[in-house]
Parts: sequence; structure tokens; C-alpha cells
Amino acid sequence: MTGSGPVDRSLRERAGRVIPGGLWGHLRAASLPEGYPQFFRRGEGCRIEDVDGGVYVDLMCSWGPIVLGHGHPAVERAAQAQRALGDCLDGPGEVLVRLAERVVGLVAHADWVMFQKNGTDATTACVMLARAATGRRKVLVARGSYHGSAPWCTPSMAGVTEADRSHLIHFEYNDPDSLAQAVDQAGDDLAAILVTALRHDLARDQALAQPAFALAARELSARRGAALILDDVRAGFRLDLAGSWAPLGIEPDLSAFSKAIANGHALAAVTGRDWLREAATRVFVTGSFWCSAVSMAAALATLDELQRVDGPARMARAGLRLREGLARQAQRHGIGLRQSGPPQMPLLLFEGDADQSLGALFCREALARGAYLHHKHNMFLSVAHDDAAIDAVLAATEPAMAAVARARLA
Amino acid sequence: MTGSGPVDRSLRERAGRVIPGGLWGHLRAASLPEGYPQFFRRGEGCRIEDVDGGVYVDLMCSWGPIVLGHGHPAVERAAQAQRALGDCLDGPGEVLVRLAERVVGLVAHADWVMFQKNGTDATTACVMLARAATGRRKVLVARGSYHGSAPWCTPSMAGVTEADRSHLIHFEYNDPDSLAQAVDQAGDDLAAILVTALRHDLARDQALAQPAFALAARELSARRGAALILDDVRAGFRLDLAGSWAPLGIEPDLSAFSKAIANGHALAAVTGRDWLREAATRVFVTGSFWCSAVSMAAALATLDELQRVDGPARMARAGLRLREGLARQAQRHGIGLRQSGPPQMPLLLFEGDADQSLGALFCREALARGAYLHHKHNMFLSVAHDDAAIDAVLAATEPAMAAVARARLA
Repeated sequence: MTGSGPVDRSLRERAGRVIPGGLWGHLRAASLPEGYPQFFRRGEGCRIEDVDGGVYVDLMCSWGPIVLGHGHPAVERAAQAQRALGDCLDGPGEVLVRLAERVVGLVAHADWVMFQKNGTDATTACVMLARAATGRRKVLVARGSYHGSAPWCTPSMAGVTEADRSHLIHFEYNDPDSLAQAVDQAGDDLAAILVTALRHDLARDQALAQPAFALAARELSARRGAALILDDVRAGFRLDLAGSWAPLGIEPDLSAFSKAIANGHALAAVTGRDWLREAATRVFVTGSFWCSAVSMAAALATLDELQRVDGPARMARAGLRLREGLARQAQRHGIGLRQSGPPQMPLLLFEGDADQSLGALFCREALARGAYLHHKHNMFLSVAHDDAAIDAVLAATEPAMAAVARARLA
Repeated sequence: MTGSGPVDRSLRERAGRVIPGGLWGHLRAASLPEGYPQFFRRGEGCRIEDVDGGVYVDLMCSWGPIVLGHGHPAVERAAQAQRALGDCLDGPGEVLVRLAERVVGLVAHADWVMFQKNGTDATTACVMLARAATGRRKVLVARGSYHGSAPWCTPSMAGVTEADRSHLIHFEYNDPDSLAQAVDQAGDDLAAILVTALRHDLARDQALAQPAFALAARELSARRGAALILDDVRAGFRLDLAGSWAPLGIEPDLSAFSKAIANGHALAAVTGRDWLREAATRVFVTGSFWCSAVSMAAALATLDELQRVDGPARMARAGLRLREGLARQAQRHGIGLRQSGPPQMPLLLFEGDADQSLGALFCREALARGAYLHHKHNMFLSVAHDDAAIDAVLAATEPAMAAVARARLA
């Protein structure tokens, strides 16, 4: 038995009374295909168990944070050892310094680092830092890119005023001309170009940053004395431990990290170059739990383990095994399956499926066979996804692909 | 040996290289009197230990989060039990529903609740919810009140644009006429009145909300169809488990909680009334760790324990013991000591000490004798502060008061 069972339904009913819409935000099951569970009991390695006992190979990895597998022993040991001493104290622990040194040593462009809790905290701090350092206001963002859920960036306009967005100028991702036009539009008020590590918009084929685009972003911002901000919240420490644009040889001025940095413990980070250091002492950003030591101990252990096993390469290998298996299945069933994104963050879209209804069918069928996928958001691999786990996913997707083939004929 | 020792100094030096200014935000020791440690090793009950082995009775309680004492056994057991199952999964655990029901049952005005990570997340969400529900933009805030560190509210203007604040209108806390004028200024664009549970500005005597002011805020917002938002981040669950304005009989439309809700685990909450429920389903606010189960399990245990022992009353008793002892010491030494705020959140200011230099001296002397105080920010009591702990603080403050008396003569 998998899918939304009696315990899940009962919890949803209770949640519906005391939580608007039953849940807020991106984990709301109402945005998933029918039958997906809302509530989970447990996670271990690459598998999650819902409250009705359904067990799935987890291809969402909690939407990114889980990069080594749920409950990774080394991470949890480090977290527990720190917890036994203290977590949220009147100042940070020594672990802050060790983690800061580690991140600065690891991330190619980083001269310094600050820590937060949410990815949104990190992207917002980057924008503030760029404005403080330049004394300018305009921030260029790609149309449709997700940078968090603060008023200046959240995808819904409910509760947002036009003033919250008044200094944003849009460009098209991977389009250097469009970027250059936006830079011109900002004129001498350009504070920053803000760009995600890859184009990972919902329900749209992902696109890696093209070298010419990344180079244009780097050169235009440098020429105008503005900051290039890399929003590496979603991809960071999954594609490359030195930062997701390190393989391109492009160093941003500021990067925002979160999600994978501590294998599920709440943490975010901003890394920056020296010219922004002074501004970083003037901008006042803080939070009650930003110095908490447990998530930092977890982050240190996570980064150590990712480096020790070459996590990005391991995840790429698993992602390629999945991609090739799915491609074979799609071909066998004569289905146009578009697979995009880096192998560690696959997105599946079906040809001729503008409303993602075939995708939803595919995911429902796979879910019923023990694979937890997403029909329009990129998925995430972890180091815990070994060959056996990928093969278990493929065993679930084969009949799901057959169901899609039948639906297309019907 | 207490105060900034060799290990602390060495860590500061290393931190200074990889973190702008050595640390960001409110926990930065540079804003404290000289000799205060920056780095801590451990916390247990009402005591903290710095990295050089200095042990202090902690009157900051991590600036609010620690409400039962550091590492409270029942809270940590609950957190650990949840951690063994899972924390950050593809959806919340059953504990979300139990916590939501608990908070809605506990907080007087709450028909529903949503959870976040930072206090700033909660206050920002409240503003967005009020705007979404009313379709209006103006938000009234008291001059000098702290509501978080997002661009719309952070105390420093570095990195902030005028557009970020363009729909704020200011009034004077506890001044109904000033509030009425601000309401008139907002006209038919009034979305919300946002007010802290008490006036707890830095370096200024605290002031409880006067009943006439609270009533005016309630009536004006109701009459204009706007939301009354209570920012209970700092005081919530420390003064009254039903919300800090419950004793006044004033029910806000929205409340923001964080700090004390989970005894140091990262969590925040927004509670609201039914007329804002639909808006809450439209506003998109979310975060990678907002559904994480461990902090919710910790919150349930924290609220249970606070209720079981009547935490607010226990903290008030400890705070009064401290207040009376300090008053006796000040009188004995002929010193004008102003003690303000609710007893659970005391603030100490000396007469004729506009730059808080006497306060800094007092705190340094107390620190050297094992009491960790603050010279211009309100402090926090916890349930772990028993009579013996308060007496230990008073034993440290007696010679500190004598030092202040000597300094005033000099």
C-alpha cells in the first residue's frame, strides 16, 4: 500500500482545521498528483516512509536538503555531539570558525562567509550587500527564476506591493543580449546581476548556464562596478563543491547557499569577495538561530563527507543511470520524454503534455510502485542513491511508462 | 577566570579573517562591554560556559530562545526521538498537526497557525497576509520598534532602498493620538497596525503596552478593516502562554512568535483569525526547513513543560527576586538604577548614563564574577533560574554596584 492512506487522510483533515489550506508552501501535497502522501514518518538513506507505512525511493530528497541520504550517520553523530554541549547559546561555538574556514577554503570565489537559516535569507542578504557596497539600487533577475519567498522575490503577488519589486529589472536566462539591455536600462544605478546556477524554473526544461551567458554576466557586472550574485541555493554542493559555476571558470562576487549544505539541518550561507567585506559589516541581518552550533556541526560533517566520497560525481553517476534507464523505457514505449538539467537534478517532462497530466499519471503509477518522483519540479539525487536504488526506481517507472503509453493511445 | 580568554581571542582572530567583522548581527561581542566572550562551549540549565572555561549564570538566554534552560531534558528527549525517525522530509510529520492544534488551543486569538524559521519570517508573513487580505498597502509601525532584519524593517539602512519602506507609517508606542493620526494618514490604504507586545527598544526604558493604547490599536484596526498584528517574537510564551496581550483582553488578528517557542530550536509561527485564513492560502511563503519535524517536537515539549510548571509565573518570580535584590543594592550604594519591563524580561539602565558606560562597567564587573548581563538590551529569565541562581547573580552584582558607585564618585 502506497499513496495517501487512512492515517494521511485523517491528518490532512485535522491539519485543514488549524492550518490554512492544510499546509503552506512548496511541500503542500495539493500541488502534487493525486494520491501522494502529505505526511511522513521516517527517512533513512534514500528512502522515506509515509505515515501509512508506504516506503519510497526518494527522488526529491526533501526538495534538495538531503544530499548524503536521510539520517546520515556521520552527520547525525556530529550534530549529536554538538547538541550534547549546546546549540543556541549567547554566541557561536568554535564550530562556526571551523565551518567558516572550511567554506572559504572550498568555495572558489569566497574570501568570507556569513550564515543564515533560509535560502531566502541568503539571497536577500546578497541583494542588500550589493546595494550597500555599491550605493545603487537596481537588481537584474531572470524572468521566472525562483530566488525565495520574500516580498521582493516570491512567485505569487498576493501580499506583495509594487514597491517591493520597484528596483528589479528582468532579463532572459542564457540570453546575453537581453542581459546587456537590462544592464543598460539600469544605467548608473546597477547594484547587482542575480542569477541562479542553472535555469530551473517549474514545468520548463532546465538549462545549464551557457558559458557565453555566464561570461557576459561576469564581465558586464565587473565593467559596471556591480556585484554578480550567484543564487546557488538549489544547486550548491550538489554539482560542484567549489560552487556551481566553478567548472565554468566564472567567479561570482557573492553566492547564496542553503539546502544541501548541512544534509537537512537548517542552515544557509552567503560567501563573498573582499570588495564586499566592508559592506557586510554595515548591513544588519541576523536571526535568533543563525549562530546555532548544531546545524554548523552538521554542515562540517556534510561537506567533509561530500568531499571524501566525491559526492557530486557519485550523484552524477546515479543520475545518469536513471536518465539512461528512463530514456530506454521511453523509447521502448514510443514516448517523447524530455530529460533536462544536470544529472544530479533531473527534470522529466513529456512531449505534448502542457498541463503535465501525463507527468502526473506517470508519477502516480511510479509512486504506487515505490518511487517518489515529481511531475514538474526538478528532482534531486543523493549520495545514498546507489545502483540498487536507481534500479528500484526504474522497476517502478517501467510500468508507469507503459501506463503513459496507454493513456496517449486512449 | 572569566571574560575573553586566550581561546576566545584566538578564535576571534581566525573569525576576523573569514567572517566580515568577525561576526554578524546581534550576537556580535563587539557590541558588548569589553571582556565579554564571543564564543561559547556549552550551556546547561541557567548556565553557559565560554570557550576558555568561564561559567556564567546566563541572563540573556541566547537573547530569548532559552525559556526552560539550556539543554532541557524533556525538550531534548522529544527532539531526539523525532530525530531518530526523521527531520527534514518530503512533507511534515504528524507532529506538525499536533503542534498546530496545541498552538491554536493555547493562543487566545488563534484560529489557525503556520510555521517558519526566523522571527523575521513570521513578522514579514504577517505583513504580507494583512496586505493580501485587505488589498491595501500601508502598515503602521511604532518608531524605533524592532520587527526583524528584512529590508522593510532592519534597523540599519545599509543595503535598504527607500522603496522597501515606502508603505510604512510611524507612530509613537503607547500614544493613542499618534496612532490615530497615522491611521488617518493611511486613509483607505490601511492594511495593518503592527505593534510589539511591549516597547522593548534598545537602551530605552521598556514600557508595557498601556490598556488604552492596546484598545485603540484594536478598535482602530477593526473600524478600518485592517489587521492588528502583534509582534510577539520577543515576549511570546514568556509572559503569557495565551499571547502577551491576552491579560489585556485584546486579541490581535495576527501574531508572530519565534524565540521561546521551542527552547532554542529554530522555529517561528504566525497565528491568525479566520478572516485571514483565505489570504493565508494565497500568500506564498515557504522555506526548505519550515516543515522540519525536530523543532516542532521540541516546541510541543517546550509548550507542555511551560504549561506544566506555569513557566511565565516561575520566570516572573525569579525576575522579581532579581529586581528586588538589585533595587536594594542600588539603594545601598546610592545609585539611580532604572529597572523596566516585565520581570521575565528585565532591562537595567543607570541614571545619568546616556552612553551606557556605567552600565558597561556594571556588566563587566558582574561578568568577572560569573553573571552574564546586558548593559542596554533587555535580558531574559528562564524557568531554570531558581532562587540559588538569582542569588548567585546578586552576589556578582553587589560588588559591580559598588564599582559603579566608585566610578560615579571618581
